[in-house]
Amino acid sequence: MDYFEDFSVNQRIPFGHYTVTQTEIIEFAARFDPQIFHIDEGHPLTAELGGLMASGWHTTAIFMRLAVDAYLGRAAVLTSPGVDELKWLAPVRAGDVISGEAIVEHARLSASKPDRGILTTGVRLWNQRDIEVLRMTTHAFVRVRPQR
Amino acid sequence: MDYFEDFSVNQRIPFGHYTVTQTEIIEFAARFDPQIFHIDEGHPLTAELGGLMASGWHTTAIFMRLAVDAYLGRAAVLTSPGVDELKWLAPVRAGDVISGEAIVEHARLSASKPDRGILTTGVRLWNQRDIEVLRMTTHAFVRVRPQR
Repeated sequence: MDYFEDFSVNQRIPFGHYTVTQTEIIEFAARFDPQIFHIDEGHPLTAELGGLMASGWHTTAIFMRLAVDAYLGRAAVLTSPGVDELKWLAPVRAGDVISGEAIVEHARLSASKPDRGILTTGVRLWNQRDIEVLRMTTHAFVRVRPQR
Repeated sequence: MDYFEDFSVNQRIPFGHYTVTQTEIIEFAARFDPQIFHIDEGHPLTAELGGLMASGWHTTAIFMRLAVDAYLGRAAVLTSPGVDELKWLAPVRAGDVISGEAIVEHARLSASKPDRGILTTGVRLWNQRDIEVLRMTTHAFVRVRPQR
């Protein structure tokens, strides 16, 4: 298990890869974001926007899966207070292979709760053509290593 | 269809209601955010955190469904550049009924693309006990009304 002390500023955490399918784009959007350009491939507006694209919230969900697999799944995380400056920089489309990284920007102990620190990371996602598709700053409460 | 001109600063857009089920919490998290407190009800960490809670990205997806149903689905939206200051303020749990509102904070024409404006909205979500669960600032490109 990785605790707060196991992270260091400027640490780079590389992500694996996530292949986005048209079925998944439509399935996610039909449930949570049924705008034309996420669900209707044949619509003129979709064509005007270059084809079907994933919901931005689908892209953030894909980020989370990559992050859990890369490091959050084995870290002593206690939820997150939020994210800042989330930017969708380019469309995510069917067949795209998404990867990315998190870089630790700040790590500070909580002033009010001595059992945890706050980890701030800069996140970037890109596709198989190295086009950046998402950027944001995330915050997470991570438990400090328990005293023996 | 609602165009950029149909929105005004300080306009309040009320959302409907979305009931969150335990099945949906686990299903979403198993796919995108398989951290213990989102998928394993019986784990001691989950108990320590007050029980199973929805992934924060599940909550943003629920926001999007409420927003599409309330106004985005009939607005001439051309995607979003991002969101700012996304805050998860309280856990979303099984059985919660989520509602909320968007308030238009800024509306300005694009300097570079005359066919669209940028709409900035302050979003709040709350549960059935009026506890605020999410707050953020969203941006959307919305088409101006076509010339006759």
